[in-house]
Amino acid sequence: MALVYGGPGKRDWKSMPRPVVIDPGDAVIRITTTTICGTDLHIMKGDLPAVTVGRILGHEGVGIVEAVGPGVKTFRKGDRVLISCVSACGICDLCRRGMYSHCRTGGWILGNTIDGTQAEYVRTPHADTSLYPLPPGADESALVMLSDILPTAFECGVLNGKVQPGDIVAIVGAGPIGLAALLTAQFYSPAQIVMIDVDANRLQVAQQFGATALVNSTDGTAVAQVMKLTGGAGVDVAIEAVGMPVTFDICQGILAAGGRLANIGVHGKPVELHLEKLWDRNIGITTRLVDTAAIPMLLKLVGAGKLQPAKLVTHRFALGDVMKAYDTFGNAAKERALKVILTSAL
Amino acid sequence: MALVYGGPGKRDWKSMPRPVVIDPGDAVIRITTTTICGTDLHIMKGDLPAVTVGRILGHEGVGIVEAVGPGVKTFRKGDRVLISCVSACGICDLCRRGMYSHCRTGGWILGNTIDGTQAEYVRTPHADTSLYPLPPGADESALVMLSDILPTAFECGVLNGKVQPGDIVAIVGAGPIGLAALLTAQFYSPAQIVMIDVDANRLQVAQQFGATALVNSTDGTAVAQVMKLTGGAGVDVAIEAVGMPVTFDICQGILAAGGRLANIGVHGKPVELHLEKLWDRNIGITTRLVDTAAIPMLLKLVGAGKLQPAKLVTHRFALGDVMKAYDTFGNAAKERALKVILTSAL
Amino acid sequence: MALVYGGPGKRDWKSMPRPVVIDPGDAVIRITTTTICGTDLHIMKGDLPAVTVGRILGHEGVGIVEAVGPGVKTFRKGDRVLISCVSACGICDLCRRGMYSHCRTGGWILGNTIDGTQAEYVRTPHADTSLYPLPPGADESALVMLSDILPTAFECGVLNGKVQPGDIVAIVGAGPIGLAALLTAQFYSPAQIVMIDVDANRLQVAQQFGATALVNSTDGTAVAQVMKLTGGAGVDVAIEAVGMPVTFDICQGILAAGGRLANIGVHGKPVELHLEKLWDRNIGITTRLVDTAAIPMLLKLVGAGKLQPAKLVTHRFALGDVMKAYDTFGNAAKERALKVILTSAL
Amino acid sequence: MALVYGGPGKRDWKSMPRPVVIDPGDAVIRITTTTICGTDLHIMKGDLPAVTVGRILGHEGVGIVEAVGPGVKTFRKGDRVLISCVSACGICDLCRRGMYSHCRTGGWILGNTIDGTQAEYVRTPHADTSLYPLPPGADESALVMLSDILPTAFECGVLNGKVQPGDIVAIVGAGPIGLAALLTAQFYSPAQIVMIDVDANRLQVAQQFGATALVNSTDGTAVAQVMKLTGGAGVDVAIEAVGMPVTFDICQGILAAGGRLANIGVHGKPVELHLEKLWDRNIGITTRLVDTAAIPMLLKLVGAGKLQPAKLVTHRFALGDVMKAYDTFGNAAKERALKVILTSAL
Repeated sequence: MALVYGGPGKRDWKSMPRPVVIDPGDAVIRITTTTICGTDLHIMKGDLPAVTVGRILGHEGVGIVEAVGPGVKTFRKGDRVLISCVSACGICDLCRRGMYSHCRTGGWILGNTIDGTQAEYVRTPHADTSLYPLPPGADESALVMLSDILPTAFECGVLNGKVQPGDIVAIVGAGPIGLAALLTAQFYSPAQIVMIDVDANRLQVAQQFGATALVNSTDGTAVAQVMKLTGGAGVDVAIEAVGMPVTFDICQGILAAGGRLANIGVHGKPVELHLEKLWDRNIGITTRLVDTAAIPMLLKLVGAGKLQPAKLVTHRFALGDVMKAYDTFGNAAKERALKVILTSAL
Repeated sequence: MALVYGGPGKRDWKSMPRPVVIDPGDAVIRITTTTICGTDLHIMKGDLPAVTVGRILGHEGVGIVEAVGPGVKTFRKGDRVLISCVSACGICDLCRRGMYSHCRTGGWILGNTIDGTQAEYVRTPHADTSLYPLPPGADESALVMLSDILPTAFECGVLNGKVQPGDIVAIVGAGPIGLAALLTAQFYSPAQIVMIDVDANRLQVAQQFGATALVNSTDGTAVAQVMKLTGGAGVDVAIEAVGMPVTFDICQGILAAGGRLANIGVHGKPVELHLEKLWDRNIGITTRLVDTAAIPMLLKLVGAGKLQPAKLVTHRFALGDVMKAYDTFGNAAKERALKVILTSAL
Repeated sequence: MALVYGGPGKRDWKSMPRPVVIDPGDAVIRITTTTICGTDLHIMKGDLPAVTVGRILGHEGVGIVEAVGPGVKTFRKGDRVLISCVSACGICDLCRRGMYSHCRTGGWILGNTIDGTQAEYVRTPHADTSLYPLPPGADESALVMLSDILPTAFECGVLNGKVQPGDIVAIVGAGPIGLAALLTAQFYSPAQIVMIDVDANRLQVAQQFGATALVNSTDGTAVAQVMKLTGGAGVDVAIEAVGMPVTFDICQGILAAGGRLANIGVHGKPVELHLEKLWDRNIGITTRLVDTAAIPMLLKLVGAGKLQPAKLVTHRFALGDVMKAYDTFGNAAKERALKVILTSAL
Repeated sequence: MALVYGGPGKRDWKSMPRPVVIDPGDAVIRITTTTICGTDLHIMKGDLPAVTVGRILGHEGVGIVEAVGPGVKTFRKGDRVLISCVSACGICDLCRRGMYSHCRTGGWILGNTIDGTQAEYVRTPHADTSLYPLPPGADESALVMLSDILPTAFECGVLNGKVQPGDIVAIVGAGPIGLAALLTAQFYSPAQIVMIDVDANRLQVAQQFGATALVNSTDGTAVAQVMKLTGGAGVDVAIEAVGMPVTFDICQGILAAGGRLANIGVHGKPVELHLEKLWDRNIGITTRLVDTAAIPMLLKLVGAGKLQPAKLVTHRFALGDVMKAYDTFGNAAKERALKVILTSAL
């Protein structure tokens, strides 16, 4: 059984052939926990034409190894594993530089150009360098947050933004990805974290997660509010966690001289970059597709109790109820949903 | 005598009051060598409204200390000095971070908001942290290139672009600043340096300066040419040395995944940033107003014979002929001018 | 009145001439809060021959500006300031690189080669770049910890050790400086911090301050204990906070491949470096005299409530009781003393 | 036929079984070019007890793929390849961090714990991440320098020493490895490179390779000579390329405040580290076993003509004359030998 894309607006939970090992480096995983990503909603809207009708969606998951190809060295049947949303060969020049997202034979392919994890079983290519062993006793619904959302927020937002102790950080967008940036930015002890969103409820959640100031941007005055909060100086780091021209605009408007703008958002349109104001401001702007190179570090911090990914989980469903889970997640604001967990009965 | 701005299109070489020490940290310098910057031409067009009628232009120079204020610790009358285009207090938070260009009481003020160096004498604030002692026997017309153009190209282009051994670097714009980037990029031994311009003569100069490939962008196919040269991969570093939307566009079009776009150009208009293509490309974009923090290092390399700034000098005039020098520099393409040197008889 | 060094073992609280401005950049400060450093005890033992009889000791302090020289730009009479233990000109090549401790006309001179802060008044050279304005309402006994001990632990231990999220850190020595390293290492969210000492009481304090494992090294098995705790892997960062061959030895014995050994301790003797074991281990060893370049950042974190320096304060005295305070601090183990605060009645 | 270790002082060129694929990731390579390393001489002296009698020596080589295991993805029979001296799985935590030398199932094993490259055929484990395709038309005797000596000198000496433009660099030891450091240090345009050795001939070679100053350390005054050359300041980077206490001692004696000591040498004994002098000098000391992560970059620079590894080659032999080649290389000083090349007739 799997969640199958049927074209824009159409999806089905239906029976599909069970995946098997194709390449020597493949593993087949029985999914025990998975979740839905904002990107899956984009796919459902038809925004990602690379995803074709009949594709099983999903790129996040925890499961049990069911079978491995002859080239797999470090996993075997029965191992409990975390599935990275990025498949990386570990051999090509880009993988060697840690840019797994641009792997010449991988990258983000699960639930995109090959079948994904919102299913009873999934085939994962490049298993040795794309799966991570789970520590015994691990909370699966916490760790499935390490497939995508936490490394994405951390790598694209926090690492690229070079958050440093004492910094003032602003995060535009208090959805799941922005909140994950909020959680992981605190690894570096910034002095202030300003959270910006149009949704009062999400801002409240942000406060509970450690934000030191909240800015409601509904009225279009976010830039002015942040400049006031910072005494006119602006922020050291602005993290874009939405993916729209208007939110990118807030980010470029609030950067202090010497500041860093770290883009996480998936953008569908160009933005206007105000180089006529920024050319002499000593700023940096970065983009990144998550490489998930940070997964081992995040696993350590979860193990040490310094990161609680379960905070991001608001709803739980059986895997068989994935159609309903999509409805809930698709109405996130109304349902006050952050991440929804789908678990398979063993 | 000084070169005085008289409003857009108007300038005069005329008698002005000799500058004196105002603040305790000031020095007064007798100019022995100066030059004209592309920025001075922008001022003459009226592009920089902060520059008011009556201002003495020029922010580059070498000279002899004539007088110092009581707070100056490291210079005294008779010292030969290089004048940084940036005045830095050395005390404020931004100076302490090496961001001299954003000094809270300085920055680029010479020939901008206070009188400048295209004159017989100039007052330089924050002398201890804005002047550099010249080594004995130094070639002044070489070292005056360290006031602005070489640190600008190096800091904003090469350092920000993080040029590394083996990299493929593209420089858009083979004017003086682009050529200075070409000279200083070679400090880090890139494998290839592709020079892009519309002027065939300047591209020839670039080849003599070490470019390994030349791309004439006149026909609008620069991006395609660079992609072909790099086997479709694009470049590790793209340095924007012009300051126009079209040249910025070339830069964003040729970046490899993981590449860095280092902007040097002074932009008067916003640019369209293609985040819809770049959001997942792991790239960085930087801007910077030169801090001149690299001057001591550049002085060492000139002293060691590893940098020949005099290569950038194409024309020489007496300081009294500065009006003519402006004409020549203003017709740079036709005159095949890079930098013009103005020297004062002692 | 001031605490005056009288040769090894001898000190006196006695009347001394009130300091005055000598150089244009000097300030004279009325001390309101000061403390005693472990280095002061070394001086009292005669270990630092540069300190001559008649010297007023002390290099930490908070106070009120009483007078400034004509070259001081950013402070004036009445300002409340934190005094850095390092005097930095801000002009020389080493200050420009942030190496204030090696300033060509400054460095650690207070209470060393010039009179210090355990006095009613102190003259501070290079005031603009050696004093820091106190935020209104600041807790002086907390902030005086930023004169020396916290920047020392942070810069020499944590920054040099490149502590990263998820790291295993070991700190050898749970005295005030080791505990300050423990507090500031947490800025970077290591997964584990192992504290090593011979004093059970201090180890208990370390646990309250955030240590995740305690190792009593009294029986000489510290290396074996740490290797066991880390499953044979060793630690990512070992911070030496004592200054003896035996404690350095523990550090080099517990480093993982790729690990960093950050020395804070003041060493009086050479150590044996086991290059025959370490040459192929990809390790780094660093030393540093505190530059106090981190003071502005630490001030921000205190202001944001993310650092509580007052945790280090165990005893309080009136400045006039400094003789007694030395006795207490000199018997730190018995008195369970960390830092002693001396305050002057206004 | 292969060069077989027979115990201290004994070696033989004799017939051995042809190696075959054992693990799925193995390749078998027909050697076309190989060389001898200083480490091989250490093995011959019995200094490396891990090398057992009967072992085929050699860890450098260029050749043609003869066979590959079923798990090998990127090479096939007939490919011309460069063999890294380090075998790296590309999967383990240390390989993912680029520390191939500490690979949990690899590292430096060729000609050490498994049979090596001074033979007609060699089996290379982890082929996908331990072999590099040769560009067409490549000069094999140049490229075999990229198996070990050039990445070793570059990674352990130049990269770890953080050589920067304008730096003063000293290299202790003008043997092949020190000269390779000299060649690769120039990638970063230091202002001066001081070469230190006891052999006047080697110092002459160093001068031809780009050294700007030569210091003969025969009389024990190397430290004094370097301090004089640097006006008492010392050097920014000291590279230890010998591996003895006396040469390490020179390095620690000539470091400027803020300097980096990068150890390349293989040490058999502990050294005395003068922490009593260095604790407050803001220095760094590094060690590293070569990871060969720099091979792709070095290949680019050879291809671009910016690195001429063939400069290091002084003698050439047929592979069958390897016994004679060892004699020559073993008398390097007398024979004025740097690297000896062994080629196999096709």
